[in-house]
Amino acid sequence: MRTVSIQLGSRSYDIRIGSALLSGTGAACSARGLAGRAAVISNPTVAPLYAGTVVASLAAAGFAPLLIEIPDGEEFKTAATLDDVYDRLIEAGVDRHDFIVALGGGVVGDLAGFAAATYLRGIPFVQIPTTLLAQVDSSVGGKTGIDHPRGKNLIGAFYQPSLVLADLDTLRTLSERHYRAGLAEVVKYGMVLDRGLFERLEAETELLLRRDTALLGEVVACCCRLKAWVVEQDEHESGLRAVLNYGHTLGHAFETLGGYRNLVHGEAVAIGMACAAEISRAAGFCTAGERDRLVGLLERLGLPVTPPKTATDLLTAALAGDKKNRAGTLSYICNRGIGGHAVLKITPADLAAAC
Amino acid sequence: MRTVSIQLGSRSYDIRIGSALLSGTGAACSARGLAGRAAVISNPTVAPLYAGTVVASLAAAGFAPLLIEIPDGEEFKTAATLDDVYDRLIEAGVDRHDFIVALGGGVVGDLAGFAAATYLRGIPFVQIPTTLLAQVDSSVGGKTGIDHPRGKNLIGAFYQPSLVLADLDTLRTLSERHYRAGLAEVVKYGMVLDRGLFERLEAETELLLRRDTALLGEVVACCCRLKAWVVEQDEHESGLRAVLNYGHTLGHAFETLGGYRNLVHGEAVAIGMACAAEISRAAGFCTAGERDRLVGLLERLGLPVTPPKTATDLLTAALAGDKKNRAGTLSYICNRGIGGHAVLKITPADLAAAC
Ligand SMILES: NC(=O)c1ccc[n+]([C@@H]2O[C@H](COP(=O)([O-])OP(=O)(O)OC[C@H]3O[C@@H](n4cnc5c(N)ncnc54)[C@H](O)[C@@H]3O)[C@@H](O)[C@H]2O)c1
Ligand SMILES: NC(=O)c1ccc[n+]([C@@H]2O[C@H](COP(=O)([O-])OP(=O)(O)OC[C@H]3O[C@@H](n4cnc5c(N)ncnc54)[C@H](O)[C@@H]3O)[C@@H](O)[C@H]2O)c1
Ligand SMILES: [Zn+2]
Ligand SMILES: [Zn+2]
Repeated sequence: MRTVSIQLGSRSYDIRIGSALLSGTGAACSARGLAGRAAVISNPTVAPLYAGTVVASLAAAGFAPLLIEIPDGEEFKTAATLDDVYDRLIEAGVDRHDFIVALGGGVVGDLAGFAAATYLRGIPFVQIPTTLLAQVDSSVGGKTGIDHPRGKNLIGAFYQPSLVLADLDTLRTLSERHYRAGLAEVVKYGMVLDRGLFERLEAETELLLRRDTALLGEVVACCCRLKAWVVEQDEHESGLRAVLNYGHTLGHAFETLGGYRNLVHGEAVAIGMACAAEISRAAGFCTAGERDRLVGLLERLGLPVTPPKTATDLLTAALAGDKKNRAGTLSYICNRGIGGHAVLKITPADLAAAC
Repeated sequence: MRTVSIQLGSRSYDIRIGSALLSGTGAACSARGLAGRAAVISNPTVAPLYAGTVVASLAAAGFAPLLIEIPDGEEFKTAATLDDVYDRLIEAGVDRHDFIVALGGGVVGDLAGFAAATYLRGIPFVQIPTTLLAQVDSSVGGKTGIDHPRGKNLIGAFYQPSLVLADLDTLRTLSERHYRAGLAEVVKYGMVLDRGLFERLEAETELLLRRDTALLGEVVACCCRLKAWVVEQDEHESGLRAVLNYGHTLGHAFETLGGYRNLVHGEAVAIGMACAAEISRAAGFCTAGERDRLVGLLERLGLPVTPPKTATDLLTAALAGDKKNRAGTLSYICNRGIGGHAVLKITPADLAAAC
């Protein structure tokens, strides 16, 4: 088992990465000093696979667990689902001394984390991410939230978990599509922060696609360390943390225009990164060869790299509504070569035209 | 003008207390380093009186203000109203570099503060409290939130403002009922934290009821200093801060049972304090004479001190649902003499029976 620590003063916490961690959930929560009851939030896909183990472990440790299921899918990361969660918490009499456990992918983690941030002005919560995307990205760093009809993640809070348990065994049951989507975020870390990681992904593509546990342990830990390093310097995204939005500005626009249904998050990010590499090349931040290495790796990982056909004016409007838009100019994250990053000031219209 | 500072590291801020502060809103926001647009949230009672001055001042300072009105009343401190505020913010394109100004009493402040805490994972906000209750209590300390059909303030966040402007002139237009309700919170500070304040309220009751500005300036500043002292030691209410709940456990139960409509918050707190003083006496924390001084002061301030006729089992249920309830026992705040406090462990049933 590997441990990566996030140092944020009184909000510090550990990420545990390894095999067979679920059955140690109760013990890990005790060791972390959590008390009271555990409200486990999951969904009908993940709960049948893993909630039994988690709930049994919490029960054995005396946390009298309660299971709350929310529907599966990004389209349910909404205020209506959040309201149902509040109702269940209130009905069960969950109080400030209890805690929430998020068991699932990024959708469960984001919504459960936001519920924890806002129920009774905040109760502790534990992340048990069960997708690759959630293990390397969404469960770490404290971004929580829900979608709004007008855009993704518009409502939310920065709220750090007390503990993250990333059990690599859970990745075995993940669909091929979502596994590959998670790899897009892994590629992102390599492309803008760690050339060594990028080259390892290039060299071990086959092993990665076979979900080799030893390799995954190293890759997940590497991504978490990179994210920890970024979040420790910029918890609330006023500067450096924006680098993790690489591929996301266009990615979000593609997701929004597709009504969140045609592309899953990681796929949208893969396309967004392919566009970003071309824009980085045009801006002089990388060579055509470096751009092609990114596109080639994404393709070998089975990820899409071609933007959906979108009218330029629709895309411009989607980008102008993007929350990173500032007085008509976006701060757009580029890759600098492979493993570095740069910021480009660009208008939504120019960005849309560059796709 | 007086300034009270709240020292919370990177979340520190000033409370300005004085006359004619509204017309300096824009300059104060500039001096605080705020930028972008200001979204002023108010209601149809307060806006006609004061939004003109605030908006003009913000406009003159270049903050391109936008006015958002929410309906007046505790019954609108809800998820539905919050949703409307989100919609207005999104429509207007308010982004992370903009800020919210809450102009009104505790209802506006709580809801606008929670909107600021959760819109785009948090944008800055300024409190301009226009009721006595909001100036001495709700605008300071970072508790924000909304009500839930099952109870008050169940959904919320700790989120500190960037600045608080308490303009004493605004208190002149406050209804007699709400002015007196605010005095209940002032009495609370004296009763559990500051004997000198309590005795001053006893000595200058007449001047206080005439809303003498000089006296009010001193009283508001005194309460803010006391609240600052408490909040600095216990921002998230894990200990000392609970002392500010004096009179509130029963007060909230009376409010809830009355559907929030029969009693305003401060009135409910006044009754709750009268009960608390009797319970404190029975527990040996104060004398009958001290209890009577509290009840006498509240009565001279025109505040109710007799609990509404409530079936004991209904009250027990309301108390057991109170979020401060912990495994069947409440930590109930008592006064220790006048100006001190103590915690009594008591079951909801015993507490209900003591009323
Ligand atoms: N908070 C952040 O910092 C952050 C960062 C990136 C993404 N996100 C958010 O994360 C979400 C995407 O997360 P995601 O990709 O994990 O999607 P997801 O949560 O929808 O999970 C994908 C699918 O896999 C299923 N699943 C989860 N674990 C499984 C397992 N072990 N075995 C079998 N099936 C499993 C889920 O039920 C779902 O159907 C988006 O809402 C995005 O906005 C948040
Ligand atoms: N956040 C906290 O720490 C905290 C603490 C205590 C109370 N509260 C909350 O505060 C709320 C009660 O606040 P309140 O007593 O200010 O009630 P309120 O906001 O409802 O204001 C009372 C009435 O006075 C009107 N009003 C406000 N300012 C006025 C002015 N200057 N002139 C004329 N009319 C004016 C309002 O429109 C309203 O009709 C409750 O929701 C309570 O839960 C919060
Ligand atoms: Zn992402
Ligand atoms: Zn109060």
